[in-house]
Amino acid sequence: VKRVLVPLAPGFEEIEAVTIIDVLRRAGIEVTVAGTSPSPLQGSRGIRVVADLSLDQVDQADFDMIAIPGGSQGVENLKKHPQLLALLGEFTARSKYIGAICAAPSLLSEAGLLCGKQVTSHPSVKAQVAKTALYSDERVVVDGKIVTSRGPGTAMEFALKLVELLMGKEKVAELKEALVSP
Amino acid sequence: VKRVLVPLAPGFEEIEAVTIIDVLRRAGIEVTVAGTSPSPLQGSRGIRVVADLSLDQVDQADFDMIAIPGGSQGVENLKKHPQLLALLGEFTARSKYIGAICAAPSLLSEAGLLCGKQVTSHPSVKAQVAKTALYSDERVVVDGKIVTSRGPGTAMEFALKLVELLMGKEKVAELKEALVSP
Repeated sequence: VKRVLVPLAPGFEEIEAVTIIDVLRRAGIEVTVAGTSPSPLQGSRGIRVVADLSLDQVDQADFDMIAIPGGSQGVENLKKHPQLLALLGEFTARSKYIGAICAAPSLLSEAGLLCGKQVTSHPSVKAQVAKTALYSDERVVVDGKIVTSRGPGTAMEFALKLVELLMGKEKVAELKEALVSP
Repeated sequence: VKRVLVPLAPGFEEIEAVTIIDVLRRAGIEVTVAGTSPSPLQGSRGIRVVADLSLDQVDQADFDMIAIPGGSQGVENLKKHPQLLALLGEFTARSKYIGAICAAPSLLSEAGLLCGKQVTSHPSVKAQVAKTALYSDERVVVDGKIVTSRGPGTAMEFALKLVELLMGKEKVAELKEALVSP
């Protein structure tokens, strides 16, 4: 079984977080939602979601991938969390997948993980991300183990790309039919 | 200010519920999430969401539209809720918008609200819905005050159509840019 970690901080973008969790679970992937603060955590549009556990309890050894939702305030809150930066270092060192959508690529950028990489992000953080990365306007970009995407409107394509990387294209085709996704 | 009611029952489809709530709130619409049981309510893929209030406390006079997410178990649970059926009758009598996505059009069908109407739904409930309605395979269908759609993969288009009906096309264009929606 593949396992994916989704970190959640107050101000997370709800469509992005929920689309990642829902689509990956539909694919048979074990998704753990780890919160930076006590549950429920409130998203950028006031939706309150209960996390499975605290981010402080997470061991990187339990996961094949981390997928980080956006929401500018949520990403700012994640940047302040020392455990998350340590986890990103461990995921990188062990060559595990790191996914980031919307404002979240700016977190990877500040952590020094995007140097010379092909990436995309929400247009609002493009200038920051483009400083060290090779910026693309594609809706989903994969470069090695780094997977990036742009916003709530690309969340479904992003989640399906994560499924493809972990489970293959056949699983994606099967999911698309049930989701009524183009 | 426009006001929209989103009823939530255990087993709701998370992408559909959250996309409706998030996109409508981005448009400046007041969205009330009303649960059939104590919060948090668990969705079809195990995501737990906190409702704003109980469906029993809802007064139809406070709303311009009801938008019902799918999830087959969630919709079955909504069908058992007497208050929801009463609300649908009142929304119909007062010619207010009724939106339903995925399995939720089957609820409208059983309530007798789709007779001779152009509608769509998730393919899995097509046979049931098509008994009395004029079935379409379009991704979003509007017929008078009834707005229907197909699944998680059409949730963004559905939510944007609801925004268009309440707030106009300019608001939709503005949202699409921020959402990075095609």
